[in-house]
Amino acid sequence: MTVESNMYEEVKPQSMSTCALGAAAVPVPEQLCIFGTGDLGRSLGLRLLQSGYRVVYGSRRPNSCGPLPEGAQVMSHAAAARSASLIFICVHREHYGFLQTMAPNLDGKVLVDLSNNLKKGVYPEANAAYLQSLVPGAAVVKGLNTLSAWALQNGLLAGKQVYLCGNSAEAKQAVAEMATKMGLTVLDRGSLSSARELEDFPLRLFQEWRLPLRVALGLIAFFFFYLLIRDVIYEAVEKGNDISFRIMISLANKVFPIVSLIMLSLCYLPGVIAAFLQLYRGTKYRRFPDWLDRWMLCRKQMGLVALGLAFLHAIYTFIIPIRYAVRHKLISRVVDEMKNNKTTPFDFDNTEAWGTDSFLVLGILGFFLYVLLGLTSLPSVGGTLSWREFSFIQSKLGHLTLFICTSHGYIYGWNKFLRPSTYKWYTPPGYMLCLIVPSVVLVLKFLVLLPCVDRTLTRIRQGWERNQPGEEMAMTKATNL
Amino acid sequence: MTVESNMYEEVKPQSMSTCALGAAAVPVPEQLCIFGTGDLGRSLGLRLLQSGYRVVYGSRRPNSCGPLPEGAQVMSHAAAARSASLIFICVHREHYGFLQTMAPNLDGKVLVDLSNNLKKGVYPEANAAYLQSLVPGAAVVKGLNTLSAWALQNGLLAGKQVYLCGNSAEAKQAVAEMATKMGLTVLDRGSLSSARELEDFPLRLFQEWRLPLRVALGLIAFFFFYLLIRDVIYEAVEKGNDISFRIMISLANKVFPIVSLIMLSLCYLPGVIAAFLQLYRGTKYRRFPDWLDRWMLCRKQMGLVALGLAFLHAIYTFIIPIRYAVRHKLISRVVDEMKNNKTTPFDFDNTEAWGTDSFLVLGILGFFLYVLLGLTSLPSVGGTLSWREFSFIQSKLGHLTLFICTSHGYIYGWNKFLRPSTYKWYTPPGYMLCLIVPSVVLVLKFLVLLPCVDRTLTRIRQGWERNQPGEEMAMTKATNL
Amino acid sequence: MTVESNMYEEVKPQSMSTCALGAAAVPVPEQLCIFGTGDLGRSLGLRLLQSGYRVVYGSRRPNSCGPLPEGAQVMSHAAAARSASLIFICVHREHYGFLQTMAPNLDGKVLVDLSNNLKKGVYPEANAAYLQSLVPGAAVVKGLNTLSAWALQNGLLAGKQVYLCGNSAEAKQAVAEMATKMGLTVLDRGSLSSARELEDFPLRLFQEWRLPLRVALGLIAFFFFYLLIRDVIYEAVEKGNDISFRIMISLANKVFPIVSLIMLSLCYLPGVIAAFLQLYRGTKYRRFPDWLDRWMLCRKQMGLVALGLAFLHAIYTFIIPIRYAVRHKLISRVVDEMKNNKTTPFDFDNTEAWGTDSFLVLGILGFFLYVLLGLTSLPSVGGTLSWREFSFIQSKLGHLTLFICTSHGYIYGWNKFLRPSTYKWYTPPGYMLCLIVPSVVLVLKFLVLLPCVDRTLTRIRQGWERNQPGEEMAMTKATNL
Repeated sequence: MTVESNMYEEVKPQSMSTCALGAAAVPVPEQLCIFGTGDLGRSLGLRLLQSGYRVVYGSRRPNSCGPLPEGAQVMSHAAAARSASLIFICVHREHYGFLQTMAPNLDGKVLVDLSNNLKKGVYPEANAAYLQSLVPGAAVVKGLNTLSAWALQNGLLAGKQVYLCGNSAEAKQAVAEMATKMGLTVLDRGSLSSARELEDFPLRLFQEWRLPLRVALGLIAFFFFYLLIRDVIYEAVEKGNDISFRIMISLANKVFPIVSLIMLSLCYLPGVIAAFLQLYRGTKYRRFPDWLDRWMLCRKQMGLVALGLAFLHAIYTFIIPIRYAVRHKLISRVVDEMKNNKTTPFDFDNTEAWGTDSFLVLGILGFFLYVLLGLTSLPSVGGTLSWREFSFIQSKLGHLTLFICTSHGYIYGWNKFLRPSTYKWYTPPGYMLCLIVPSVVLVLKFLVLLPCVDRTLTRIRQGWERNQPGEEMAMTKATNL
Repeated sequence: MTVESNMYEEVKPQSMSTCALGAAAVPVPEQLCIFGTGDLGRSLGLRLLQSGYRVVYGSRRPNSCGPLPEGAQVMSHAAAARSASLIFICVHREHYGFLQTMAPNLDGKVLVDLSNNLKKGVYPEANAAYLQSLVPGAAVVKGLNTLSAWALQNGLLAGKQVYLCGNSAEAKQAVAEMATKMGLTVLDRGSLSSARELEDFPLRLFQEWRLPLRVALGLIAFFFFYLLIRDVIYEAVEKGNDISFRIMISLANKVFPIVSLIMLSLCYLPGVIAAFLQLYRGTKYRRFPDWLDRWMLCRKQMGLVALGLAFLHAIYTFIIPIRYAVRHKLISRVVDEMKNNKTTPFDFDNTEAWGTDSFLVLGILGFFLYVLLGLTSLPSVGGTLSWREFSFIQSKLGHLTLFICTSHGYIYGWNKFLRPSTYKWYTPPGYMLCLIVPSVVLVLKFLVLLPCVDRTLTRIRQGWERNQPGEEMAMTKATNL
Repeated sequence: MTVESNMYEEVKPQSMSTCALGAAAVPVPEQLCIFGTGDLGRSLGLRLLQSGYRVVYGSRRPNSCGPLPEGAQVMSHAAAARSASLIFICVHREHYGFLQTMAPNLDGKVLVDLSNNLKKGVYPEANAAYLQSLVPGAAVVKGLNTLSAWALQNGLLAGKQVYLCGNSAEAKQAVAEMATKMGLTVLDRGSLSSARELEDFPLRLFQEWRLPLRVALGLIAFFFFYLLIRDVIYEAVEKGNDISFRIMISLANKVFPIVSLIMLSLCYLPGVIAAFLQLYRGTKYRRFPDWLDRWMLCRKQMGLVALGLAFLHAIYTFIIPIRYAVRHKLISRVVDEMKNNKTTPFDFDNTEAWGTDSFLVLGILGFFLYVLLGLTSLPSVGGTLSWREFSFIQSKLGHLTLFICTSHGYIYGWNKFLRPSTYKWYTPPGYMLCLIVPSVVLVLKFLVLLPCVDRTLTRIRQGWERNQPGEEMAMTKATNL
């Protein structure tokens, strides 16, 4: 009852001799039916016509359904259904009722449910399951619902991945062939019970970004209040100065790099944790705990959030000299010096020059590598890299970036570590706190790279096990790629 | 007469028993013919060989036609044509003449015309139509002409979209199958009368960028002369100062942000105009006026031009403190203050500090969001977003960006609105002019978001109509996706 | 013996009438076999199941081989091999031995070798050739080895290009069809002798980046030491000042733009060399020398390295005013002026203001165009451009960028060319050296654009030859696209 079999039915009953005449082999464009003449129906029809199909629309009022793509026919629902074996249902779920009344016409047909909902969990069952219950004699396939009318109209489909699910393998096969012809790549997600999952796809809202964004917001909030107390409130309480204007830029330009560095090290922490876990367990065949799995899956997003914050830090730094407060300080410093007529106020401090310049250079190089890492995480750039290139950039270059950015932090405080004035109200400054996690990650990574540890780890990752039940078992595992 | 039917002719006359022996089913690579041994012909042949076809070249002098891909044969045109059913014509249109003389050899063949012209409108009819008129017995298919020899050689075809047109459905089907096997996605553009359109594709030059670029250039020219008069000429006429050096940076750094903000608001203006038009008409089923349609189609390009100008504004701002004029002003101000021995010249103004810092921070955040918007308009990034994510970014984040950038503009003038010195020669300063359109867009957008308006608009967009002819009509429409 | 023929064998022996009943046409999902239950085997199996195949694993210990994708079967190697005609070998090469012992079970099967090595040149022959020698009765196909387990699991395959090679056309055809169904685009690389090349693909490490990076590093090293001697050591020797702190930023910020400009001009030099070579030879049909070919192939990478250096130059420039040394110099200059009580120290120099501002503006515009060029070289952006747009950007805009950046360099030295103090130790400053190559490229490009030269060159590129052996020969060539 699929498209396939239909074509066979048409072609095969004619005797073999027709084939030899070269006539039966002429491909008659297959006819597909679309119920619904809304935006999606119209765009889908246009695209199907462009892919070489004939299209017939089923409409309640075939004579007044607005402009349809050139070359398409319009009929009543029943007539349209009879003329094709594959029917696209481009109708809101609330109006599926009419399909029940015409169920006999749909027996043995493939119904493709493209509908989406506006919110999750409005209905007890998936739209496609509801459709199947209304028309038990048809083979319902859920799918293509991630395509928008806009993408269909503008031909943005080439190579795009779409999902299908349904209970009938033949029906899915027919829809998959049609989708392949439109330039889509099809993934089968199993039976109709996955329909709900497919219907939730277009409603996803940055799911894999949520954890990184929450971590970033939490860290930003913590460091903001911590630095607010240490810098602004301390100054107001202890010295009576109102420097609240610093919140806007000075404070933000401390919080952003701090959180960016921590987020970057959180990208590489799960990797070393996983390595130590495998070393401890002596096997790679036991699953990681769930929290580690989830953490590892959002490393890319963590890195991009860190890059965003580093970008903000860079711009905040560039505009420092334009600030009113900075220019005021510069001018008043000159005037003070002149008025007090100090004799050696302007001795050039070579160490200071080397220190601040190194600090700046490490920041620049770190930012440059940060941007490189970000560029290779663009899908179209990453896709052109070989596996070895990708792992070189994400692992070696990534750890180098972390190392440079951490050094940037250390040099910032190189001559402040031992000054008592640094520890206002006995609290360490923000940059000290932010260096803890990166330093730990770098030390652990260094340990993992030690030859003896590295050798064991490589063997484990190739399938070797420390506490294997029998010699043979290990053999089997070490065999597989 | 297609490739398909040819294969059938070869295979089928043998009795069914051969099939059962598993021998006839062995896929013999199909042979394709290419006329022309230039860059394109050679690259195409290489690629066809890589996709598993056999290739034969037709050449006027088969023995001296230069290096051809390994594995390809060369014959005379006539012999090559006889050996394949699908022939690629990789020859300049001016030399199609010889095809007429050998037309009998091409009867029943599929000819794929890949030619392009160097300019539009040189010839009265499309190359493919001319070819068809020369060889009426063949089935001409226009297509693949958007592929360059360079892309073919470097294997940059995967998932690329190509267009076909032709009068014979079978011929198009044969070419489409060949193209699909090369990894291309095929779109059928109908009969051979579309050939002209296809031949113009490779000659397009930033068609959808023209309107945005023209608007940007017009606005830049207007604001440049407006500010030239107000800033430079006013100073020269009224005070006799020559500050013409300011044209290079100070003036440009006013013009670019002004035009960028206006362009950004022009991205979002058609959306609110469309919403009010739908509210006024009470239906979504009447087409928008042409100018609105065209405007809406170039919103993305408008936004990117605005981003480019914002990027220039950012860099112009970063280099302000390095400028000779700025450093000179700073130094001379200090010296002036010292010489005149003012007593309270350097009082720190807290309000000024808050004001300028807020101004800078809004600019930074606006630019950051601007860049985010630009990144999501990269095809490979936008393609990974779900529909809801894309609309979240382009609509919510877009309007937030507009709001922040507009605030950036308002704060710039917070303490200048009421000073008479602001209105030189009774003209308002540039930043005031540039705030008009963004403010209007934001107010209109706010009105659209009011619950009562929003509710009506959502109903209209789901297909409801205020002045429907009959109850039933509305029902039909509201049904469709 | 391929999948194809197997299916035919199953279907065809039944009489034709079954087809007419529409039953035999029901697509029974084909069964594929995977040897090896490691990461790659599991990911591949999952993906094959999602693409609609049935999957059976061959394992030495079918009962204890860890978690496999839902829906897959596990059997002994021999049983699994018998149940499918296409077998994926996801096992390390070192363990291929067991395949020899079960060779009789593999007779007539298609074996897909997906293995990779960790290093190049470890084994005398390719893994696939070794496999073929162990199992002479099977048809070995090397391929899909560029897919990682990670990409397979995460569905990142759509439109990706993979390579196949093998001695049996049918076997390759069967694997190609399977790969196409998974959304991959297949390129045939010929016989099994290409297997080594395919096995080296995943081990490539920035091959096309090596030449540009080496050139860049060489130039950076040269200019670093040249400027170190001229700037820092000269100052120490001749004047006794220690300005070594300048190495970090001032020196780097001279080296980076110098090398960036040279690299940019090296992008466009091979193009003009090729043009002059064609003009000299009077034909486009003779191959360019090898060094020119290799140079032309890495132009894109050269441009991107140049962009990276320009990006560093921009950031280095932005942070100039924050530097300790710069602020110190500014302050001490003011104080000096005040103490010495000069009368006309702060006369504003209009020429100086115009000169430095023009210098900055040219730098900004050059950087802006540089970034534009870089953006269009992103695969996903470049892919959306028509051929004419791409060549407009890469040629016209590219040369404009080079022109603007070269002017940026010229204006930097506009008033230093004639000063004797510029030529320390009789050496020219770095910026003069770096202007040589770009100036030469621009002059040559200008010559090529002269109408008379351009006309000849266009004719040559359309196939015309100056010294053709006969009139006819030229005709033939001018014919081809």
